[in-house]
This record gives sequence, structure tokens and C-alpha cells, in this order.
Amino acid sequence: MLNIGKGLTRLQRLLEDFQRKDRRSLAKLITLIENDSPLKEEIIKKLHFTTKKARIIGFTGSPGAGKSSLIDRLVKTIRQRGETVGIIAVDPTSPFSGGAMLGDRIRMQEHALDEGVYIRSMGTRGNLGGLARSTKDVVKVLNAYGKDWIIVETVGVGQAELEIMNIASTTTLVLTPDSGDGIQTIKAGIMEIADIFAVNKCDLPGADRVATETEMMLDMQYHKKAWRPPVIMTSSVTGEGVNELLEAINEHHRYLQENNIYLSIQKEKAITEILDIISSYWQKLICQHLNGKSQVSFLLEKVANQKMDPYTAATKIIEILATPGSLNTAEGKKEMISDALS
Amino acid sequence: MLNIGKGLTRLQRLLEDFQRKDRRSLAKLITLIENDSPLKEEIIKKLHFTTKKARIIGFTGSPGAGKSSLIDRLVKTIRQRGETVGIIAVDPTSPFSGGAMLGDRIRMQEHALDEGVYIRSMGTRGNLGGLARSTKDVVKVLNAYGKDWIIVETVGVGQAELEIMNIASTTTLVLTPDSGDGIQTIKAGIMEIADIFAVNKCDLPGADRVATETEMMLDMQYHKKAWRPPVIMTSSVTGEGVNELLEAINEHHRYLQENNIYLSIQKEKAITEILDIISSYWQKLICQHLNGKSQVSFLLEKVANQKMDPYTAATKIIEILATPGSLNTAEGKKEMISDALS
Repeated sequence: MLNIGKGLTRLQRLLEDFQRKDRRSLAKLITLIENDSPLKEEIIKKLHFTTKKARIIGFTGSPGAGKSSLIDRLVKTIRQRGETVGIIAVDPTSPFSGGAMLGDRIRMQEHALDEGVYIRSMGTRGNLGGLARSTKDVVKVLNAYGKDWIIVETVGVGQAELEIMNIASTTTLVLTPDSGDGIQTIKAGIMEIADIFAVNKCDLPGADRVATETEMMLDMQYHKKAWRPPVIMTSSVTGEGVNELLEAINEHHRYLQENNIYLSIQKEKAITEILDIISSYWQKLICQHLNGKSQVSFLLEKVANQKMDPYTAATKIIEILATPGSLNTAEGKKEMISDALS
Repeated sequence: MLNIGKGLTRLQRLLEDFQRKDRRSLAKLITLIENDSPLKEEIIKKLHFTTKKARIIGFTGSPGAGKSSLIDRLVKTIRQRGETVGIIAVDPTSPFSGGAMLGDRIRMQEHALDEGVYIRSMGTRGNLGGLARSTKDVVKVLNAYGKDWIIVETVGVGQAELEIMNIASTTTLVLTPDSGDGIQTIKAGIMEIADIFAVNKCDLPGADRVATETEMMLDMQYHKKAWRPPVIMTSSVTGEGVNELLEAINEHHRYLQENNIYLSIQKEKAITEILDIISSYWQKLICQHLNGKSQVSFLLEKVANQKMDPYTAATKIIEILATPGSLNTAEGKKEMISDALS
């Protein structure tokens, strides 16, 4: 058990270093969040009051589509403009540690020496929901650090990756002619999440066909929608299309801003986040009442033995735990929540 | 908006048909649950008091590993013993409708004519969490219907499928020599979920190698654990190993029962389920307070505009919504919950 008092003093110092743009403090804060430290709530609360300006963008697509090389090119262009970048590479299928580097991260090593670029890999440590939540919090830390751009990249493409992509305001789906990425092989939900399509490795045969198929699909499905995703031919080898890609990302951002969509997306994200916090609050609250003789424990056993349905039990548990003594005095509640969330 | 009063009368009739083992009422109840009907809570509550005896088992593995054919064989054996089966085929990557049949379900058509076998395919309708929850509830309906066995099969194998497999008490991972299913290609989390390994298509070359590799891996990782998963060679073509597989499933069930593991697993599942219910309760409660002028709406906007951190907002929202007027009178609370959950 970590000593919270001492932890807070250490955290204070860490946050001061962070304010001075100390790179190691950034890494340490991210590790604390990834490890679901008792200080996590405190960190997020403290960081909330710093300036935030980052453009949060996502890249998804099959493994081997060349996402990392394309991001590498994009980062070069961003850096030439004097802006800074944080990159989070997320692999929901891998339990690797937060500090580990993926093999294809290695080609980004030139950026690793650049103070304006911070790269972090993240994998599952437990459940998927946890990974999406951690990624969201790491985005917050990078944002508070002052990054102009935050790039979230998933290693593969699937249902789990979709949940992670929700964090980004603008998502690019990277297709490629050489991996059988025919439009028909892409699942519906994945097409829908894309705000921009990049046909990467556009110098390979078949790239035109992939682009045409994508355009046709978009003509069919998006003709009534306000934002019709552009299809951009890119090449990480020659750098072709990278400026166009960046311009399309900016264009999409303007579209979100001008149509007031941005704020309503942010509001929806706030709801999700608050619900996550309330859920984990109840989880901790129930866990605190799991001793053998408590009423909560008794109810859980009844459900486990199929002697009570879970809805009735949930109602009773809310009744028991949301009593004036525990939840209802504002102060007691606050204490309980910060305790439960820690 | 569905008229709840009328709905309840219709539900009453549906449940009477269900009690008489009417097959169509079974399908209708499942559809109501899949569609997240306002009657869902009522259905689960009512079904909770019928006898339940089903053995809930899971099958996972790469697409093409022959899971469906193997299940087909297993179902034949179970039917020969005079026991009944419900099969739920879950594809987290596909948004197909609840009534749809997968291509490889077709080979189960002979069972489709058998009153003792009920087959249902399920896909994602929205989010992953929702699919796992629906699958759990469909298992409950099949259990209340009186099935002796409930088989949950995932179409592929991945993080999303793992969450679904949590529903089963005994999970079989189906490997095969012909799809490069070398042990090293299987991700860690997926190995760990398996209580039994089936090396399917055991007549193909390489099956022995897959079995040996699996045994070696198990020797390394499981030598200290109470349950060491057996590795069974199976063939859907010849039927080899199917009886052994069924015996292993029964053996694992005895192991869970005798070591009191079964009840503690059930208790953990009850906690998860109740937390799910409480979460969706809060979700509905917050949604009810989303009108322009409410305090909740004001707090959400502050978080969306990055003017307040989500933890502080969550604390305040709990304070606002868990007031004596709303949550605290037992009756008001109950009403609210059943309203919110509907």
C-alpha cells in the first residue's frame, strides 16, 4: 500500500518538473497513469488546469499497411513547421509493458532523439475498457505537456481498436494495395469511423483500384452526409500525399469547429468519461463491502446461487450503499469517492 | 415508444408460451433481449425463478479451426444421450442481425430440424460491452428454457472474444495444424482462458507437433496450477476424440464443483453483472437530466470545455442525483431504477 501523504508530496515535485517541460517527469506521470496508481485522480485533476491545444488524431488499418512509416513522414512535416508531437501506439492484443517499444517503432528512432517528439507504446493490462481509459488519460497528459499534435495509432484494426479510436477527433484509415485490403474486406464499423482514407504504398500496382473502390463506396454511402471523407494517395517512400493528408486533417478539424460538431463530440466524451468514473466508484464501493457478513455480500451470494435476479440485487445495493450516512452528506461523499477512486 | 402496460400483458402471454416450451416464444424473448427492449429487465426477473441446470461451455479459436464442425459432432453425441442444447454463435466483428445465420451454421441444418437443439447467431449492435451483456442474457433465457447444455461459440479469437468467453464455465480453445496455429502465434491471454485444448483436424500432418508444443507450453506454465488443461486430438470428420472432449468438459465441471471454485466464479460474475446494471442505471439517470438548463448539463459542458476535470464533475453529479428526493426514498428509488433501466 502506497503512502498517499508522501505520494502527494512526491507528486507535487513531479508536477513542478512537468511544468518545466522535463521529459522524464512526463514519462513518470504516464507510467503512474498506466499502472492505475492511487495518485491518478490527483494527476488528472491537477493537469486539467494547464493550457491545452493539441489536435488529437488517430491512425488505424491492418498490420502492414504502413501506418508507422506514414506517421513518421507526417511527423517530419509537422516538425518542419516547428510544432511538437506525442505519439501513442496502442496494441489491444498485446500485453507488453508501457515502456516497451514495438519493432516498427524502431524506424522512428530519429524522432526519439528529437525533444519535440514523444513516443509511447501501450498494451492491454487486464481489460479492454481499461486500455481505452488509460489511453484517454495519457492523451490528457501529453496535451497538458503542451504538445501541438497527439497521434494515436493502433497496431491492427478491429472492434477493440474502434473503441480506442473514439479518443481522436479525426481518424485516418490506412489502406494498402498489397495486403488484399479490398474495400469488401473492411468491416462496416471500421469504414464508418474513418474521416479520411489514405491509400498508402500508392506506387504499388493496384493502388488506383483500391482508391477507386473506396471512392465508389463513399459515393454510395456518404452522398447525404455533411463530411464526405477524402481519399488520399500516399507513399511513405517518396513522401507523396503527406502534405495533402495533413491538409485534409486540418480541413476536417475546421469542419468540426465551424459546424459546432466539435463541442457536441466533446460533451459526449465527457459523459462517457464521467460514467466511467461513476462505474469505477461503485465498483470500489461494492468491493469495500465484500466482507463475509455484509448485506452486500449476502445479496451477491443470492445472485450467484440464482436465488435472486441481478436487477433486484442492484436496486437493493444502491439502497444500502446510497444511505444518508455514506453517500448523502456532501463531505462524506466526497471523501468516499476520492477514497474509492484512489 | 412502446406502451409498457400493454407490453407487460403481451409479455405475460409470451412467458406462458415459454413455460410450455413453445419454440417461437423462445425466439421472441431472445429478440426482445437483443433489441434491448424496455421489457428486458422484466424478462430477466421473471426467468430467474425457473429451474436452471445448464452446463455453459465455450468454444474459441481462429476462424477455420473447425469449431462449428466440432460442435456439430459434440451436439450429436449430447443428443444421443437424450440431452438438449442451445448454441449461441457470436461474432464481435460483424453487425449482422440476431436472426441471421452464419454461412458455417448451415452445416448444422440437420440439428435445426431437431426440437432439442436451438441455434442463434449474434453480432455487434453498437458496442462490445453490449454484445457481451446480451450474450449473457440470452444464455439466461436458454437456461430458463431448460436446456441441458449451452454452447457459446465465437467466430474468431481475440480480445473481444475473450470477454465473451467469460460467460462460459469451461472454455475449449480449438487449434488446428493447417492454419499456422503454432503455439507461438497464440496470444498469451487467449491461452490462459482455455480450460481444455482441442487439436482439431488431427488427421492432418502437423497435428502431433501442435499437440506436443501445446503440452510443452502447459508443462512450463501450468505445473503449479490445480487444473492442468488436457490436450485432446479431435477430428470432426471421423468423430475421433469427441467423447474424450465431452468427458474432459465434465471432468472440468467436477473440478470446479469439488473445489468450491464454481460458486466463487458465480459470485464474481454476479458482481460484474450488478455493476453493469448500476452503470446503465446511472447512464439513463444522467441522460434524463440532459436538458439545457439542468445542473448536470452545465457540469458536462464545463468538462467538455476543459473548464472542470471529470472527477470533480462526477462527484458533483453523484451529489446532485443522489439526493433524498430522487434516490433516497426506497420507493422513489425503485421506481426510478426500473424506469431508468427500462
